[in-house]
Amino acid sequence: MATMPVPVNHRFVRYRLEPGGSAKIGLVDKDELNVVEAVGYTDLFQLIAAHPHLASDHKFATGAASRLKDVEILAPLPGRDVLCIGKNYIAHAAEFHKSGFDSSDKKEQPDFPVFFTKRATSIIPTGKPIYTHPNTTSSPDYEGELGIIIGKAGLAIPKAKAWDHVWGAVIINDVTARERQRDHKQFFIGKSLDTFCPMGPYAVPSSSLSYDQLHLTTKVNGEVRQSQNTSELIFDVPTLIETVSMGISIQPGDIIATGTPVGVGMGMAPQVWLADGDLVEISIPPLGTLANPVTATPPAVCSLAAQ
Amino acid sequence: MATMPVPVNHRFVRYRLEPGGSAKIGLVDKDELNVVEAVGYTDLFQLIAAHPHLASDHKFATGAASRLKDVEILAPLPGRDVLCIGKNYIAHAAEFHKSGFDSSDKKEQPDFPVFFTKRATSIIPTGKPIYTHPNTTSSPDYEGELGIIIGKAGLAIPKAKAWDHVWGAVIINDVTARERQRDHKQFFIGKSLDTFCPMGPYAVPSSSLSYDQLHLTTKVNGEVRQSQNTSELIFDVPTLIETVSMGISIQPGDIIATGTPVGVGMGMAPQVWLADGDLVEISIPPLGTLANPVTATPPAVCSLAAQ
Repeated sequence: MATMPVPVNHRFVRYRLEPGGSAKIGLVDKDELNVVEAVGYTDLFQLIAAHPHLASDHKFATGAASRLKDVEILAPLPGRDVLCIGKNYIAHAAEFHKSGFDSSDKKEQPDFPVFFTKRATSIIPTGKPIYTHPNTTSSPDYEGELGIIIGKAGLAIPKAKAWDHVWGAVIINDVTARERQRDHKQFFIGKSLDTFCPMGPYAVPSSSLSYDQLHLTTKVNGEVRQSQNTSELIFDVPTLIETVSMGISIQPGDIIATGTPVGVGMGMAPQVWLADGDLVEISIPPLGTLANPVTATPPAVCSLAAQ
Repeated sequence: MATMPVPVNHRFVRYRLEPGGSAKIGLVDKDELNVVEAVGYTDLFQLIAAHPHLASDHKFATGAASRLKDVEILAPLPGRDVLCIGKNYIAHAAEFHKSGFDSSDKKEQPDFPVFFTKRATSIIPTGKPIYTHPNTTSSPDYEGELGIIIGKAGLAIPKAKAWDHVWGAVIINDVTARERQRDHKQFFIGKSLDTFCPMGPYAVPSSSLSYDQLHLTTKVNGEVRQSQNTSELIFDVPTLIETVSMGISIQPGDIIATGTPVGVGMGMAPQVWLADGDLVEISIPPLGTLANPVTATPPAVCSLAAQ
């Protein structure tokens, strides 16, 4: 286990200079004040495929610099359904099991990793509002998660080689409509409502991370709700990659959201749901802070082409 | 309910003239002998978005003709995870419930439509082999299904307007690893193994279909296993579209596989699984026949870019 923090040389942001403008890829500085364009890249799937094992001293050709507060930050990896894991922290598995919303299993902890997906149309960047969908659910809930980004394609990857296929990490908010998750038996619908997959702000490669030292904090309106080291998983990252790749080819840019720790609204007594006007902030230094307000104002129909 | 068959004016095939060549979109003739290129289209997502309500008398600019047997037929709509419905025919819900593989519900028939997805990496065209994944499953099974293709994007679509969002239809084989479907609780992994989503051969618009007159037949090695009208659903197409679009924006080119009728291998006594050397043929006139051999020879790692 590494004990020294590694230097954060690369923190990628997808952004544009004005609404409707073309998306750029940039590097964010240490203090998160400025972004410098990485010339030659228009999306992160392309950059990841070109650099599946990004070295910490790699120098990108850089272009114009901008103040981070002046640009529109976009979701790092849009357009593809996100792989997710259910019930992967012990205390969260317990709070879910006793909540009345777990229709998936008679046991508190699963015997096999529970994989499901969130629809690509649910992805939003930091800053954009999570819509409460009042006509569809009365139990919208947050789930702060570490998302692992795949770098190298593979099939039938053994645990011992799994980290070789990991490019880096990103924060995911696995927002969930609890009664939809329960009533439709399969989690997909309750997990996939439009705006229910906040992602970002940054995509950070493994060479700038110590995976055993990542600490996740989720705050709602400034109150700490989740606080846990993201390495305390029931099924660790190598096990998740071995399991999913047993029969499914994983692809550069695929995200595996590794599950949420204890502390969701479903686990509180009484249960507390997200509501219009709330602010959800999920931080995992050095992945940044994924901050999304909550609104009861409906969004427009999502267009994948405009994500 | 329509009682007269409608003329089949448009039957689209995605194809290429040689391995590694560029994909074309073409129109197949009545006898399925020839394909004529539809000039100006390189994929069906593009054609569907341009013609969300394709008129039966629409004339496409046509190019070169080829013998259908001389071209390589590709999957009509690759690269996007496929939406699917579980337990949507009464007799199939019963055979699944009593099979020992249903971990999703205590009830035989669901109270709400059961939505899940198949990974884009599982999609293969007609003719290509379904891999049995002997290291991952000992219970690979077929599921012949009618897939509905979305034409017009939408969110919160009421039943009465649902057909306005349907572009047409395609055959899907929802191949399933039964113990994986059971053990991981969520269906996703057992449904998403590479090669487990045969799709095609043709995409046919609504103007060439009578949805109440579509009859599905599945044969394994020439033996009829499934034979049912595809309108006999527990949750009909308008209900499925209303349910999924309640919170999820549907997109042009999305596919909803509407569930499988009775007669899968899991429901036989004794249970019979797909095996090396089998041939699975699913027919829904006029959608053609989706024919896939079964192999125990592993495929290469799937590349989305090459699909």
